[in-house]
Amino acid sequence: MTRQELFEQIKKKNSYLCVGLDIDLEKIPKHLLSLPDPVFEFNKQIIDATKDFCVAYKPNLAFYEVLGSKGWESLEKTLAYIPKECFTIADAKRGDIGNSSALYAKAYFQQMDFDALTVTPYMGEDSVKPFLDFQGKWVILLVHTSNSGSADFQQLETRGGRYVYEEVIFASQRWASPNRMMYVVGATKADKIGTIRALAPEHFFLVPGIGAQGGNLEDVSKAGMNEQCGLLVNSARAIIYASSGEDFADASRKAAANVQDEMSKYLQKYLQ
Amino acid sequence: MTRQELFEQIKKKNSYLCVGLDIDLEKIPKHLLSLPDPVFEFNKQIIDATKDFCVAYKPNLAFYEVLGSKGWESLEKTLAYIPKECFTIADAKRGDIGNSSALYAKAYFQQMDFDALTVTPYMGEDSVKPFLDFQGKWVILLVHTSNSGSADFQQLETRGGRYVYEEVIFASQRWASPNRMMYVVGATKADKIGTIRALAPEHFFLVPGIGAQGGNLEDVSKAGMNEQCGLLVNSARAIIYASSGEDFADASRKAAANVQDEMSKYLQKYLQ
Repeated sequence: MTRQELFEQIKKKNSYLCVGLDIDLEKIPKHLLSLPDPVFEFNKQIIDATKDFCVAYKPNLAFYEVLGSKGWESLEKTLAYIPKECFTIADAKRGDIGNSSALYAKAYFQQMDFDALTVTPYMGEDSVKPFLDFQGKWVILLVHTSNSGSADFQQLETRGGRYVYEEVIFASQRWASPNRMMYVVGATKADKIGTIRALAPEHFFLVPGIGAQGGNLEDVSKAGMNEQCGLLVNSARAIIYASSGEDFADASRKAAANVQDEMSKYLQKYLQ
Repeated sequence: MTRQELFEQIKKKNSYLCVGLDIDLEKIPKHLLSLPDPVFEFNKQIIDATKDFCVAYKPNLAFYEVLGSKGWESLEKTLAYIPKECFTIADAKRGDIGNSSALYAKAYFQQMDFDALTVTPYMGEDSVKPFLDFQGKWVILLVHTSNSGSADFQQLETRGGRYVYEEVIFASQRWASPNRMMYVVGATKADKIGTIRALAPEHFFLVPGIGAQGGNLEDVSKAGMNEQCGLLVNSARAIIYASSGEDFADASRKAAANVQDEMSKYLQKYLQ
């Protein structure tokens, strides 16, 4: 999917919501557990309920890997079920030496057909480049995450006077244009989003940390929006576990519709 | 497996070789491809052939993920086949916010029973800690990798006068003792191994980059060995693809035996 196509979808749906498909067997409604593939069944109903209110879906691989080969099958079926108009993100945080990264890229972009993969920058350029060899696919690079541990290394100041996460932004802009790369920018401090927007005016940011992790949607939207919106704001638990009863799909629809309604206001207010 | 048990095995086998099970369907002997699970069949024969000459096995997850749910099954069967005395490393380079890292830990330490997992440090302490909650299991933290991209961020100098990879060593020593944590230290520059050994005198180092990537085994052993050996040196391609014919297992046995023979000399010469 191109940046322009993503923006068209955002305008059409008046939404920049990404729904995190972080499926925990202990949290999904009990009546699904007797089905052959409860994870896929849950995702299917969540996707049906939310697809008009969101522009992207992001399964976090940790939730599927813990289920072994069965989890992998649920993931493949889920991806196939997501409507083609939606942007799909494998939140896998991969990154390795060149030939291994090339295989991860093949796994997510060719064997499966995700639009984007989250990638960790620690191993540098040649660990990220293989993901960029797949035309039309996106790297979403970890820059400044929303957890407390982001202070440990991301926020170290280098001798050049930049933080490590800023070095990641500067270096990675040489590797790919904003048409092929996005950044993960945590939402727990909205002022940080403004700082990073100044460094990367055109890039889309994938923003986790709204809701359960404490970020505020209006602050993030005000600080981070650019002329193509430039934001995909992720919400998982608040939407997919809006109810633990048989009405879970309806409840997730309402939760997603509420966020979309709020987003439509911010698009009017802050889209540049 | 404890550090002492690992050292006992090293002394018993006179080896600190780790065999990388990086299985590429395009590289394994053609006659295996008609079997129901060629990857497992290949691994099984490689393990039988090399187990007397190595102390650890390290499947790189990229090679299994690219095969989808079938690859996952091959991995599970391979792990179950590895003799219990051998140290097993899932080379997955995972790392995410706390609850996701906890699921990755569960996937590799509980659903599967690996001894150790490679972990990437970019997201800091709370992304690494969940892996340490599993007693008897090891985190192998990326510190200084062997690829050219290691210069991009790992070797940035911070205002405190340390490199980023040194900051990772200092910080992580507060998170876990050398009984629970090892470091990935690339072998392409042996002098770097000496520098890092000075910062972490007791830790085991997992050293990739010997052979295909250009590192020299004697230089690495001289610079890195401590009083419990402290080294696991990985070799993949040079051993598992020693022959592409029907004699592949025999050829891998000879290749592993040659490395073990060399290692036995260095253990005599450099063990402190």
